[in-house]
Amino acid sequence: MDGVSRQDFTFFHPLRVRWSEVDPQGIVFNPNYLAYADIALTEYMRRIGFPYPDGLLRLGSDLFTVRAEINFRASAKYDDELDLAARVSRIGRTSLGFSVGIFRGDQMLCEVLLTYVNAARETQKPMKLPEPFVETVIAFEKRPPERTLPSA
Amino acid sequence: MDGVSRQDFTFFHPLRVRWSEVDPQGIVFNPNYLAYADIALTEYMRRIGFPYPDGLLRLGSDLFTVRAEINFRASAKYDDELDLAARVSRIGRTSLGFSVGIFRGDQMLCEVLLTYVNAARETQKPMKLPEPFVETVIAFEKRPPERTLPSA
Amino acid sequence: MDGVSRQDFTFFHPLRVRWSEVDPQGIVFNPNYLAYADIALTEYMRRIGFPYPDGLLRLGSDLFTVRAEINFRASAKYDDELDLAARVSRIGRTSLGFSVGIFRGDQMLCEVLLTYVNAARETQKPMKLPEPFVETVIAFEKRPPERTLPSA
Amino acid sequence: MDGVSRQDFTFFHPLRVRWSEVDPQGIVFNPNYLAYADIALTEYMRRIGFPYPDGLLRLGSDLFTVRAEINFRASAKYDDELDLAARVSRIGRTSLGFSVGIFRGDQMLCEVLLTYVNAARETQKPMKLPEPFVETVIAFEKRPPERTLPSA
Repeated sequence: MDGVSRQDFTFFHPLRVRWSEVDPQGIVFNPNYLAYADIALTEYMRRIGFPYPDGLLRLGSDLFTVRAEINFRASAKYDDELDLAARVSRIGRTSLGFSVGIFRGDQMLCEVLLTYVNAARETQKPMKLPEPFVETVIAFEKRPPERTLPSA
Repeated sequence: MDGVSRQDFTFFHPLRVRWSEVDPQGIVFNPNYLAYADIALTEYMRRIGFPYPDGLLRLGSDLFTVRAEINFRASAKYDDELDLAARVSRIGRTSLGFSVGIFRGDQMLCEVLLTYVNAARETQKPMKLPEPFVETVIAFEKRPPERTLPSA
Repeated sequence: MDGVSRQDFTFFHPLRVRWSEVDPQGIVFNPNYLAYADIALTEYMRRIGFPYPDGLLRLGSDLFTVRAEINFRASAKYDDELDLAARVSRIGRTSLGFSVGIFRGDQMLCEVLLTYVNAARETQKPMKLPEPFVETVIAFEKRPPERTLPSA
Repeated sequence: MDGVSRQDFTFFHPLRVRWSEVDPQGIVFNPNYLAYADIALTEYMRRIGFPYPDGLLRLGSDLFTVRAEINFRASAKYDDELDLAARVSRIGRTSLGFSVGIFRGDQMLCEVLLTYVNAARETQKPMKLPEPFVETVIAFEKRPPERTLPSA
């Protein structure tokens, strides 16, 4: 995600670092960045009108995390006021790339890349991402998500 | 719980303090002592043959926490090897006093007193503690629980 | 704290329940209410001009939790928008009672009563609460804190 | 890490899933797998004689996480008895690959790959991994770590 800056994101959510999230070295304990990314997804889905979990469940599906990648650049500290920037960076047929940049001012402290698979609620089998959701995301994002649809 | 020592407890469960549980001052963050007490209850119930949650559910009831009291005496630190000592300290008709002493060696660092109400799973209404459970507890504890049954 | 309602509090801080704070029963895991109370203290101290931890440290002292009491009345659920209401309910010579009501609308779900001791940073010995802090609290609270100063 | 099985690991650490780690869907909340990997590192370092943090600090350095990758295959549930399998999978000049497999029996539920940089404690600048540490790791691991030393 080199070269990515705040300008690449349409969605931001503010977050203040809690005492409980900071370790004996005075910095945010690593797993909390993944918890922050989960908050970013929740708030992103609420913003675009698909509040978790009902937004997709009413269409019969749910998102399952299959992969996470975290790049740590600098540390957040107690009481820091952060911005969780988030965007759908990739849309496949049944999967979704979700990219979260954790910023303190203009400095990206940490980058989290999540891969979700959309699956049928009942069978848990991968299921095509609902069109209304895909269209909403594309209309929302100023930097268009990469499309990785299988070729015909 | 003045004067209470390791000798008052029949049940002990070892626990090592995790990095994630320690705050910027190098001591265990307070809410974690309550989480430790929850672990103590889980392991106590397993030991006496009523593993949570099925042990009581098969008798139609479940325990709900209505009150917690925590007295902090000294701080646990990263990597400390603690003992969670636990006992049923009081048995009422529908309620239970559960007492957890968090020890580092012979020093009690923290004392947690929990009050649970036994309630019917379906209606969530208070329900008499099941006799088999009460008898098992009384047989297990070397220091007998206080009985606070209503008088006839 | 029977009879206590939102009207008794001057300070409120909004908080939305996170997915990570909710247990398999769909309700907030008990120790998180204590973590919420810690957030309430942090924000209260910021509001009255004594941001934690520097607000008191610059006067040579720090607050240590010695006791917590939690009364659980009803459960908060995922995504609930709560209000943390907080007040200094008691001021002693070296100790402080801090009362937190966790509300969903007008319903108090949980009440947390914390006792702090003010101690010298260096020696960790109890130390008289700084006058500027006491005066600020008294001016801030519309319902006056109980005074438990030793008699002359 | 396809094809990796328990047989690739020399080090194992048992862990029982706590109630606090499980989400409303009854499965372990994702960030906790990263916290489990942190426990695995702590216990690995203890086992090989370099207990965190003093083991490396006495040689003037410390490990900093720069990257984490997590592949989720199946979910751990409440009360599951897991094995954290861990190995140093790569040794560079100043960096280290640490691979954690989270097993329930023979099934790998989750795989965490961590990249650490060894840095001087004072300057926080990357520093050659101490020879005694490298030798100890190589002697310990039955499946040799990949060496990614720069060519002469």
